[in-house]
Order: sequence, then structure tokens, then C-alpha cells
Amino acid sequence: MKIGILGPESSYSEKAANIWKAHLGTNPDISYLKDISEVFETLQDNSIDYGVVPIENSIEGSVGVTLDLLLEHEFSIIGEVVVHIHHCLLSKGKKEDIRIILSHPQALAQCRHFIRKNYTDVEIRTTGSTSHAAKLATEFSEMAAIASRKASESFGLDILAEDIQDWKPDLTRFVVIARKQDKRIQTCTHDCKTSIIVYLDRDHPGALYEMLGELATRGINLTRIESRPSKMSLGDYVFYIDMNGSTKDPNVKEALDSLNQNVYMLKNLGSYQSYMEE
Amino acid sequence: MKIGILGPESSYSEKAANIWKAHLGTNPDISYLKDISEVFETLQDNSIDYGVVPIENSIEGSVGVTLDLLLEHEFSIIGEVVVHIHHCLLSKGKKEDIRIILSHPQALAQCRHFIRKNYTDVEIRTTGSTSHAAKLATEFSEMAAIASRKASESFGLDILAEDIQDWKPDLTRFVVIARKQDKRIQTCTHDCKTSIIVYLDRDHPGALYEMLGELATRGINLTRIESRPSKMSLGDYVFYIDMNGSTKDPNVKEALDSLNQNVYMLKNLGSYQSYMEE
Repeated sequence: MKIGILGPESSYSEKAANIWKAHLGTNPDISYLKDISEVFETLQDNSIDYGVVPIENSIEGSVGVTLDLLLEHEFSIIGEVVVHIHHCLLSKGKKEDIRIILSHPQALAQCRHFIRKNYTDVEIRTTGSTSHAAKLATEFSEMAAIASRKASESFGLDILAEDIQDWKPDLTRFVVIARKQDKRIQTCTHDCKTSIIVYLDRDHPGALYEMLGELATRGINLTRIESRPSKMSLGDYVFYIDMNGSTKDPNVKEALDSLNQNVYMLKNLGSYQSYMEE
Repeated sequence: MKIGILGPESSYSEKAANIWKAHLGTNPDISYLKDISEVFETLQDNSIDYGVVPIENSIEGSVGVTLDLLLEHEFSIIGEVVVHIHHCLLSKGKKEDIRIILSHPQALAQCRHFIRKNYTDVEIRTTGSTSHAAKLATEFSEMAAIASRKASESFGLDILAEDIQDWKPDLTRFVVIARKQDKRIQTCTHDCKTSIIVYLDRDHPGALYEMLGELATRGINLTRIESRPSKMSLGDYVFYIDMNGSTKDPNVKEALDSLNQNVYMLKNLGSYQSYMEE
């Protein structure tokens, strides 16, 4: 069995995958992939069994590419993991040597104030992951990477500054994805969350309010709503909704059935155990 | 009079500022600033009179930093401009020379599929703006910038590929901001939109549904709702809401008054003329 994640080693995705492995109670291999798109592609072509991908951060918000790919593919969310993020500034050089700061765009955004205050004139470069930044920073002492403490050990870099994210706590939520037809998937039975994607009928004012009414009037608690562009035109959105409960619960099932008849498109991403602790 | 924008020259922000200048009927100078934070800071310290900043794109969604800064500052939105984006790949080198592609993260995200398909192994670097990427690409023939056609003229670069965004149309919405106490600000009187930021009482399930009810039951059309992390903890959000109408309209005024009494925090960003054409 194989879990695919954004690599290389010592990424926050690896931390999330290890938490998920402990939860599974088995020891699948980890495939370190180049980017989040590759996690979806290798899951599609059966090269991996699960993907563990970041979906949301408590400072910088949604991971747009993950949301878009969940809409494009036919996968189920079968679990979630929340990871505490402690960004460090890592380099083989000294503070005064640093001319370039490298990291994943989400990590750079989470440390925007820190960089602005302490490294006004450096060049910013993005990388595919925080651990990839750490790997590159081993090559030049004028480069510093924003990455995890574990990455400093893996790549032999010094920690120039620690816990540099602008707000604390800094938490990233990862979801575990699997192919819909995978026979190992069991519908969640306790402490469940259900995720859906909804595309409303655009020419129907009040459609969003009515949709939320289907949940509210049945006492279903919405834990998240996020809009993403439909890519069709400006002002046209799809909504990503998380709610407490499982599609095995009669009220959730009823709400989704009713929504299905009244919206343009509804995609059920599945019910999974909500898992808020490391 | 001065307008501050994300520079250098030939950015899409400059295009937006020129449309706004035409609308104003006067000819204020343009200040080209380093990043969006600097637009807010120079407006705060009275060095400029207006800022024109991107807030939303039809492919990649919200510009997080603009949303965060609107919450942090006490500015009003006094207008909006929508710009058609036609990204080009610009370089002084040839296609086979390109090792590095540079651009603003939003532009890179809008061309994700194009890059993946045509430039699998290039290094991606981000810059503060698309026009800054074009400026840097003048230095090395192994670099290509994603920027506007106008930037190719300004910086003397060849166009290697045109209209490379993954979806068409690609539209970016800019807002014009001004200090709240600025006496030139007049409340919009026709074709108006009103923008607010709302922080709901977190421990109140159904709060979002009730909030939208204040608008829906008064026949107010919601044109956009976007959640951003409150930065306090995962799963805690502020909502950015745009609606048709002006605070001079009795139903909008009533809805906002009622919301004000029932939410934890409501910030009125102002009413302004909705402006959907270039």
C-alpha cells in the first residue's frame, strides 16, 4: 500500500502522512511527489492508494489547487489530519549573508510580516514545497528557506529564526483522498464530517440562502463554506461546504437529496472522521 | 492628486488605474509601488490619494493580501474596475533557452496548465508583480516572464506565446480605495454595490444562515461571499460580502443596522458604483 504526498522528505505533508499512518495502524510506503497535481494524477493511475494533501491553513486560507483538483477528479475524502506548523528560517549562511528567501507560496504568505520586518530587500522565490526550499538552500549560503525544524535536520541547515509565522497557532488541515471505487473505503460512523461541492443556479437570487436553509432547518452544523471561481466568468462561483454528520444520518441524507434537486451540480466528496488533534 | 498602484510600469494595475483616471475625468499622477502592502501604507500616511488594488480574479479567486489589508485598515472602497487579462510569455531568449519562468503568484496560478504542458522542467520564481517579472527577464535570456503584451513593448521583450491563461475570459477585479475621512468621497447613488466584512459569533450555529437571511428577506442580492481565516484558529472565519445597492437605500441600511446588532463585528467598506466594462 502506498501514500502519495508533496515531497521531498521532511515536508509538512510527510508529518500529516505519518499521523495518518499511525491512525491506520499499518505501515504503507510514502511516495514523495513533485507537486499536488502529481498526487492526484498518481492516485488516478493507481500508482498510489491514498493521497494526503493540504486543503486549508489557519492563516492563509484555502489551498486553491487542492480545491480545484477535488472538483476535477472523482475521489473521496476518507480522513483529515491537522498539523501544527512551526516555520523556521533555515540556511547554511548567516543572517547578514541572506539575499534570497525561498519557500512554498503558502509558507511565504504565512510569514509575510516577518519577512517584511526583518528582510526588507531580499528576493523572494517560490518552490513546490517547504522541504524543496530547504533542499535548494543547501547549495548557496546566500539562500534561506522557510521550512520545518525537521527539514533543518534532514538537510543539515542552521536555524536562523524559529516560529516565524505571523500568527499563532498556525495550523494546516490535510485531507486523505482515495479513489471512489476503492473497496477499503467505509462510510464514517462517528464524529463525522461530510464535504460537498455545490454549483448553484446563477440566475436564481437567494440561491445560497436557500441552500444553507436546507442544512440549518435540519439542525446540521456548517463548519466551513468557501467560494472558488467557477472559471466561467467573474462573479460566478462554486461553493465548498463542510458540515458535521455523515451521509448515513437521515437528516444529512435528506438535506443532500433535497439540495441535489435544487442546485445545478452537487458533488459529494464523502463522509469521514473529523480528527482535530495531532 | 496621486494614485498608488503595484508597479513597475505596464502592470495590470496600471491598466486598471488608467481606466479609473478616465472615469474620474482628471489626470492624477501614478505612483508605482513595490507591493500591495505599500499601496495601503502610502495611502495611510497621505502620500497618495487613491489606491487601485486587485481583489479578485475569475480563475484564481481572491487576492488574500488585499482582503487582509482591507480588514486591518480604515479605508473605503470608492470604485471598482474590471480588467481583461491576456497573459503572454515574454523573453529575450528563445523557447529552448528557457530555464526559469517568473511572474506574480496569481499569474503563475492562472497559467498552471500551460506551464505544466509546455515547460515541464523549468524553475518557477515569483515576483511582486507581472511587470516586475518582465523587467527582470530583460537580464537573462534563460528567463521568461508571464506578463502583459504592453510589458513586452515597455521592456523590449519578444512574445513567445500569447493568451496563455488556462481559462478564458480571464478577468481581474480591482477596487479603488481612499481614506474614510477623505471629503471627496461621495456615497454612490446609482448602479451601486456595497461591501462589508462580517465576523460572526462563532458559538452560534446557523449564524451564517441568519446573516444571509437579513439580506435575502429584504430582496438584497448578494453578489459575492468569501471566507478568510480570522487567524485566531482553524475553522474560524471572517466573511467578505458584496451586495447590490447602496447604504442610502432604506432596505440596505436596515439590513446593515440589524446585522450590526447580531454579529460580533461588522465593517462597512462603503458603497460604490459597480463598473463591469473596460
